[in-house]
Amino acid sequence: MDVLAYLAERAALVDRFLEAALPPAGEAPADLHAAMRHLVFPGGKRLRPAFALAACEAVGSPPGRALAMAAAVELVHVYSLVHDDLPCMDDDDLRRGRPTVHVAFGEAVAVLAGDALQAQAFAVLARDGAEVTADARLAALAELAAAAGSRALVGGQAEDLAFAGGALELAQIERIHERKTAALFAAACAGGARVGGAGADDVARLRRFGIAVGLAFQAADDVLDAEKDEACSLVRALGVEGTRARAAERLAQGLRELEGFGERAEPLRDLARFAVAREH
Amino acid sequence: MDVLAYLAERAALVDRFLEAALPPAGEAPADLHAAMRHLVFPGGKRLRPAFALAACEAVGSPPGRALAMAAAVELVHVYSLVHDDLPCMDDDDLRRGRPTVHVAFGEAVAVLAGDALQAQAFAVLARDGAEVTADARLAALAELAAAAGSRALVGGQAEDLAFAGGALELAQIERIHERKTAALFAAACAGGARVGGAGADDVARLRRFGIAVGLAFQAADDVLDAEKDEACSLVRALGVEGTRARAAERLAQGLRELEGFGERAEPLRDLARFAVAREH
Repeated sequence: MDVLAYLAERAALVDRFLEAALPPAGEAPADLHAAMRHLVFPGGKRLRPAFALAACEAVGSPPGRALAMAAAVELVHVYSLVHDDLPCMDDDDLRRGRPTVHVAFGEAVAVLAGDALQAQAFAVLARDGAEVTADARLAALAELAAAAGSRALVGGQAEDLAFAGGALELAQIERIHERKTAALFAAACAGGARVGGAGADDVARLRRFGIAVGLAFQAADDVLDAEKDEACSLVRALGVEGTRARAAERLAQGLRELEGFGERAEPLRDLARFAVAREH
Repeated sequence: MDVLAYLAERAALVDRFLEAALPPAGEAPADLHAAMRHLVFPGGKRLRPAFALAACEAVGSPPGRALAMAAAVELVHVYSLVHDDLPCMDDDDLRRGRPTVHVAFGEAVAVLAGDALQAQAFAVLARDGAEVTADARLAALAELAAAAGSRALVGGQAEDLAFAGGALELAQIERIHERKTAALFAAACAGGARVGGAGADDVARLRRFGIAVGLAFQAADDVLDAEKDEACSLVRALGVEGTRARAAERLAQGLRELEGFGERAEPLRDLARFAVAREH
């Protein structure tokens, strides 16, 4: 499979859905709505949404059924970036070569845009018209809400900030990575499986797959960012080669969870390999 | 009915639910979890939750069925206060006589605590075990997500901040009040009705009731805060007596929506009257 072509095709679907899910940039309050779109478009690789769609496919349902879940995961991811960039957090002026939301629109609007993007994630999922039972949709929504909460995404960011000065041990670093990065990958996979109608066993496997691949993704990220020497980087604890090996181990661990899924999980496997092998 | 006793009894139910719904203050990351609880406990009057419970009762269901909806509305309300108090927004140091969250825990933790409270609102509602159909719960969740979004709560705060310098016309002020305050009252009422199993007509009536009573509540608030001379106060446009009259009109408009509901909507009517007559 040509993963880049596959990702581009899936990203186009997700972009179209997101375009319709967000109020137009000109709608009042115009600065808020423009700020909400600022980091959503143009997007990145839409990797997390692709995992949601592929997980739905892996459990035997049409991937389009997970489009709202995919978009909701992306909205949570983007809102978290908007808030992480704030002056009181990581204080970043640039992201993907463009001014961050608070630089472009001011701090208050950036806080509010992040808040509204999070609300919109749940709105999109609650109102979705696709052929998904209400029970499955609620279960997917619960996956996302848990991944976005203080025991996952937000808790990981809080721990990352709190530890920013000190030296971290391997277990602490991976705990932060699991919360800050892997939980949302896991929600994408488990949520995609939920709306795809999967049973509890398959959902649990795909959640573990998502955690392992999310950790592998973050390890690969740490290798790419090795020269930044961040406190919460595996490279500090394991070195570049050790971190590369850790990424490969986590990838293998994730792929083992998919052993019973057969041919239709092949896109999901390819995405996992790509998440580790990518060069940016 | 003794409204204060009724409110105290309902607040105790909501508090118990919220206590169980939030991670313990000592759980890591401890500052984040303590910050999440800082403005939740001790709470205010829990007026919005009481509306959700009474709306459920008004459509013929036990009020306890709306407990998760009630708690979720309160979590959204509290998160919005935490973010509104931030230095980049209203920059308030005190709320209800105590230090605001960013004063007590720092700005980064305050942003994150608000973010996590919002996620928790949706988690609570998605995972609720009460006897509510999945369809009804999803519909209630959609009400809350819409009320929390850029076309309601967050949009109202953005407009409030944007206009903070200028002179506002009556229609602009009420538009902001509708978004920033009334939408959440409406979601409490419509969501309470949804989980209570109400049909579309009753839900629509209770939503309109919530908008009218939310506007009446805000008008009463503006009278109580008249000496603050805020840009977005009805007192600027109508004077104190005019604003009092406006509150009474909105209350009457709200009560008209309940005309067909009979005896079991009596607590809801009493709450609406209290929301306008309260002295703090």
